[in-house]
Amino acid sequence: MEGLARWSMRKKAPACLFVAAILSLLAVPASAEDGYDLWLRYRPMEASAQAQYRPLATTVVSQGAAPSLDAAKAELTRGLSGLLDKPVRSGPVTDGAVVIGTPVSSPLIAGLNLPLNSLGKEGYLIRSVSLDGHAVTVIAANGDIGVLYGSFAFLRLIQTHQAIAHLDVASAPRVKLRILNHWDNLDGTIERGYAGHSVFDWQKMPYYMDPRYAVMARADASVGINGISLNNVSADVWMLAPMYIGKVSALADVLRPYGIRVYLSIKFSAPVELGKLKTADPADPAVQAWWKKEVDGIYRRIPDFGGFVVKANSEGQPGPRDYNRTQADGANVIADALKPHGGTVFWRAFVYSEKDPTDRAKQAYNEFKPLDGQFRDNVFVQTKNGAIDFQPREPTHPMFGAMPKTNLALEVQLTKEYLGQTTHLVYLPVLWKEVLDWDTMAKGKGSTVTRVIDGSLEGHDNSAMVGVSNIGDDRNWTGAQFSQADWYGFGRLAWDMNLSAEEIAREWLGMTFSNDPAFINAVVPMMIASREAVVDYMTPLGLHHLMATGHHYGPGPWVDDLPRPEQNPVYFHQADAKGLGFDRTPTGSDATSQYAPPIARLFAGPDIPDRYLLWFHHVAWDHKMKSGRTLWDELVLHYDRGIDSVRQMRRTWDAMKPFIDAERWSQESAFLAIQEKEAQWWRDASIAYFETFSHMPMPDGHAPPPHDLAYYKAIYIPYGPGRPGYTAAPFRNLPKDPDENGNAVQIPE
Amino acid sequence: MEGLARWSMRKKAPACLFVAAILSLLAVPASAEDGYDLWLRYRPMEASAQAQYRPLATTVVSQGAAPSLDAAKAELTRGLSGLLDKPVRSGPVTDGAVVIGTPVSSPLIAGLNLPLNSLGKEGYLIRSVSLDGHAVTVIAANGDIGVLYGSFAFLRLIQTHQAIAHLDVASAPRVKLRILNHWDNLDGTIERGYAGHSVFDWQKMPYYMDPRYAVMARADASVGINGISLNNVSADVWMLAPMYIGKVSALADVLRPYGIRVYLSIKFSAPVELGKLKTADPADPAVQAWWKKEVDGIYRRIPDFGGFVVKANSEGQPGPRDYNRTQADGANVIADALKPHGGTVFWRAFVYSEKDPTDRAKQAYNEFKPLDGQFRDNVFVQTKNGAIDFQPREPTHPMFGAMPKTNLALEVQLTKEYLGQTTHLVYLPVLWKEVLDWDTMAKGKGSTVTRVIDGSLEGHDNSAMVGVSNIGDDRNWTGAQFSQADWYGFGRLAWDMNLSAEEIAREWLGMTFSNDPAFINAVVPMMIASREAVVDYMTPLGLHHLMATGHHYGPGPWVDDLPRPEQNPVYFHQADAKGLGFDRTPTGSDATSQYAPPIARLFAGPDIPDRYLLWFHHVAWDHKMKSGRTLWDELVLHYDRGIDSVRQMRRTWDAMKPFIDAERWSQESAFLAIQEKEAQWWRDASIAYFETFSHMPMPDGHAPPPHDLAYYKAIYIPYGPGRPGYTAAPFRNLPKDPDENGNAVQIPE
Repeated sequence: MEGLARWSMRKKAPACLFVAAILSLLAVPASAEDGYDLWLRYRPMEASAQAQYRPLATTVVSQGAAPSLDAAKAELTRGLSGLLDKPVRSGPVTDGAVVIGTPVSSPLIAGLNLPLNSLGKEGYLIRSVSLDGHAVTVIAANGDIGVLYGSFAFLRLIQTHQAIAHLDVASAPRVKLRILNHWDNLDGTIERGYAGHSVFDWQKMPYYMDPRYAVMARADASVGINGISLNNVSADVWMLAPMYIGKVSALADVLRPYGIRVYLSIKFSAPVELGKLKTADPADPAVQAWWKKEVDGIYRRIPDFGGFVVKANSEGQPGPRDYNRTQADGANVIADALKPHGGTVFWRAFVYSEKDPTDRAKQAYNEFKPLDGQFRDNVFVQTKNGAIDFQPREPTHPMFGAMPKTNLALEVQLTKEYLGQTTHLVYLPVLWKEVLDWDTMAKGKGSTVTRVIDGSLEGHDNSAMVGVSNIGDDRNWTGAQFSQADWYGFGRLAWDMNLSAEEIAREWLGMTFSNDPAFINAVVPMMIASREAVVDYMTPLGLHHLMATGHHYGPGPWVDDLPRPEQNPVYFHQADAKGLGFDRTPTGSDATSQYAPPIARLFAGPDIPDRYLLWFHHVAWDHKMKSGRTLWDELVLHYDRGIDSVRQMRRTWDAMKPFIDAERWSQESAFLAIQEKEAQWWRDASIAYFETFSHMPMPDGHAPPPHDLAYYKAIYIPYGPGRPGYTAAPFRNLPKDPDENGNAVQIPE
Repeated sequence: MEGLARWSMRKKAPACLFVAAILSLLAVPASAEDGYDLWLRYRPMEASAQAQYRPLATTVVSQGAAPSLDAAKAELTRGLSGLLDKPVRSGPVTDGAVVIGTPVSSPLIAGLNLPLNSLGKEGYLIRSVSLDGHAVTVIAANGDIGVLYGSFAFLRLIQTHQAIAHLDVASAPRVKLRILNHWDNLDGTIERGYAGHSVFDWQKMPYYMDPRYAVMARADASVGINGISLNNVSADVWMLAPMYIGKVSALADVLRPYGIRVYLSIKFSAPVELGKLKTADPADPAVQAWWKKEVDGIYRRIPDFGGFVVKANSEGQPGPRDYNRTQADGANVIADALKPHGGTVFWRAFVYSEKDPTDRAKQAYNEFKPLDGQFRDNVFVQTKNGAIDFQPREPTHPMFGAMPKTNLALEVQLTKEYLGQTTHLVYLPVLWKEVLDWDTMAKGKGSTVTRVIDGSLEGHDNSAMVGVSNIGDDRNWTGAQFSQADWYGFGRLAWDMNLSAEEIAREWLGMTFSNDPAFINAVVPMMIASREAVVDYMTPLGLHHLMATGHHYGPGPWVDDLPRPEQNPVYFHQADAKGLGFDRTPTGSDATSQYAPPIARLFAGPDIPDRYLLWFHHVAWDHKMKSGRTLWDELVLHYDRGIDSVRQMRRTWDAMKPFIDAERWSQESAFLAIQEKEAQWWRDASIAYFETFSHMPMPDGHAPPPHDLAYYKAIYIPYGPGRPGYTAAPFRNLPKDPDENGNAVQIPE
């Protein structure tokens, strides 16, 4: 019973430890540690910490009333009462008061003449001051939403056991629009969703608003996310039907106090399908008028509507090219309709065509680069971090730095489509930091992706970072406890790209599991190492897109029969008798030339870092690597290093059992066991396949795959996760017969 | 803070009410009252009740160890500790001990020589006795599972505030197999599921077994359910693939301690699809051998496997008729394979054919009745309660009583496919009792469906009652709090068909919400009335199957364009200028003749109860009803009575706010508002349609529908719930254009 709350009962003062213990063990079975509370758990701190913090957070003083201010006050009273294990309520100014507000809402704040000018609408200042002779903490901002952000920041300081007696913290977001894209379908399925079904229960809206929406909004706001798009980018035109706009409006009402604007993904052909026009040609005046009328109608119901996300002429979606118009023409017709209302278009750059024989990695750049300067100022070209598709590692997309006159938004993926999905622990802020810190050299040294994105490199006012959500209706929101860290980390990074992945991990662990240094110091390195682990056991040395068809769950490097050649793994790895890798140097597809000259030279030349080697070069199997080993040996070593890393993660997690609750520990423990099994599967299947080209022996001390290639090719997952509508093949039509024990259709034990 | 627990602290004895209040309000946010705990909540009773019960449940005495005994012990310690708000643990015999076990496991129980003979393997005895000079309660049974059932029964007594000082309760189940059919697909969707996705996470099994499986098993066991089938009766052949059997085996391991055997739905063509045979002809020796080998393989992995559910030659499923064999031939080939292992076939009688011009209501009887006596003794013919399909009200299926040499299992539907789905409060045990109490007159008076089902009417050893599950992964399991009552009630009724719907409602309310008489006495009548309400506002006076296409959500009495005529609402209501209703008397389809003669005469004659009138008769619009009103007026009155009932339900629920937590109250309150809105929609759309035939004025005091028929016909629900894979029509192809305000595609406000 150590570590449980000590009760503050000034009048009766009994040490009710025993009661607390019973209650927590028995009488409140629903208080299961299932992860629902995310990093906003607010469980009582240990007694010594309570003693330290209680005098510094005695009451919450909030003047004026506004939805975001009320949300801030509610969060502080909830959080402080929980953490400090005593009722912290609204009250007068007294020692230890937390005084919140804006100069407009609060005469107390106004009287302090705080330096808020540089903080913008969303920034906040947290400062320890003396007010009417009382030592208080003020959380001040120019806007109500800044007060809410500051309140979450103040709680985070306590949750992570920071000193709060002498605070002077000022913070403002680095980018203006920090957005999650939900890829949720109206039927409740989620494209690439690994955390259950959609959180949005469209059928019952607007008459029943699930309390979960507000919990999600709190979590989003706690890390500064200020917009969400609600539906799959492969959009359903029904989303814009009046009955759905009514539902969206009700949802917007729930999200508004938390500073979250609603966006919708739309189908470019909506004027035809919904508007019954003959065309969706952006040059057609009727089309222009239709978009304007449609947008005006939305804003009548949702005055702070954010705007649209558009996936056009990509993977079967309609777009302006259907009418011989450019991507800019398409984006602008919608942008013009949104402009009077302050709305934004996120126009996705993820385009490639089966009819274009050009290296798929080059196609987006080829199409968008010439349009630089043609997009309206309320358009973002939303560009994935790499030119292919959310791989474990990709070189940064060449469009960053190449579109100086265009607002570029960075799109990263939280949902782990190509990264082992639910059950693989891969801490993504490491990947995102690698991207953000990458120097494009576009305007000389220091032209980092961060500076492209935040607008500073080219002097853009607008700035945005977008993440593809990993949220579903699983009880823990993200399918796995550790995937919550990616949600948390996305928001924190979008707010402040200078944060390190380590800092973010440390915060999240402290808020979510434990601040015990022995725990933090073991688990932070585990999280950091997890990203390189997945690169190693899936796609080492610059390999990419080797996943099985459809669901992308498990290896399929042999797949060569998809109708679109540029979707086949063999297209990407180009293995042959001579070697492995995609020649994208000037002797090959010349994709390297899309980068700024110093980068282009680096990628095309012999000094290319090993981690990008096979992305850009076709390399002989016996090529001597920097290590002195052959490519083949190096490849095998990487695969095995990946598995070793996962084994180490399991050992680390095993040792963490004493620090956290059994329920969350057990789930992650089971998931790590699955991860090790599947890492082995990736390694064995990949080696069994590539050795049919290399014909080289396994390096000393490295075991060959336990089965032959036919075995791995025959593994078939009838219902891979995250692919709604994906239909299992008829059993009898499988490419390989299942053997007597059925091994051929399941992952090896 | 009234009504909260008072703490028993013999040594320190502080009244920690204040602490409890804080804790419950603030420090344990996860203890939200979201319904996850079902009727097994075990929250602390009020202090006076604790004082009464504590001396009577001081410790749990269990000798021997076995999975079901351990489950019983765990449930008792969990339940008693929660309810009595003190730790109740295993211990020695003492005053107030609860002594559990079987004569085999427990020398203490054996020494008592209790009268267990008549209780079978599953029954239990709860008795207050003196043991070694101590007043104790024994929970004894012949089998370990009986001890678990008895333990749940003992907890129920306390949960519902029954006296337990002088107990002598003996109980054994009325039917042997009490089974839930989950209609869950392997991709996680649920056919006719209104509570989210499947609870079964097949992808992560067997390596991660969600703790939810055990919670569900506890709930099932608590009401005596002893088998579940895991997958949709429109079965996926992949379910039998070895990789899935491994997962099923792991699930069976979780369920086994709770006395739950696992069943699978299978596709009759499995020998072709999975076995790669040329035929699934049951007369083919290779097919027979394949089933035997397949079944042997399953039992090697799951020794207590329950058996199969088969939907054959029904709604597109393959079956023995494809090979010119009978339904009995089909069932028997599978039964023969299961027989050596003690497995059972549930062969569904839900068959009808678009090629058979016979009244659809007659087809199952016509096909099965001649086969009576031809089914193996380990086959149940699983027969829906009515001959059409789970309507708000149907006359009982004529097969009950007509198949004396066949094991008949009753199939009822918990999931509310035709009953308003998630958001309509319709308490189903009322419907089921109406069926069970129905006298088929097959062997004279007293030949109730109950006696057909329990085997007593014809002296069958086997007996079964089957419910189509309403369980999903929604946090409250069933989508709505009140749908939990149907799960609860199904198990209770299958165990003891003599229980009344009122008794079951009373139990469930007490365990789930409150035992306050003011609450119980208001809500029991509300639940009881809810079934007649839905009949009235959807399908009064014997109308049936008038629902919209595909999702069955909302009215579609005008639908006449489905390719299979017997799936169109117009087929069922036969409205024309003369009147309304399906003539099934001897002048019509003569379906009445399928009933025993007295019932046939009743249904065909003028004394037919109003509630079945339009099921069996085509009645003139101006026909004088027993009430003296015309049919038309009576119809309108019933519709309005249905809406009035829902309004009354809302008033009742509004008044219940003080009795229960805000979270569950609010959700149901929102759902009831939706129910009223949709009841109005049903009424208005139905009247608007039928008045185009009757051309009669609305009776005095009854308002005409506010819109014209075209309006109601144009309402289109693109993503109706519970129909996986149902694709929304392209917006532009809707039969009616949405009007300017979009009203045409949404439910009227």
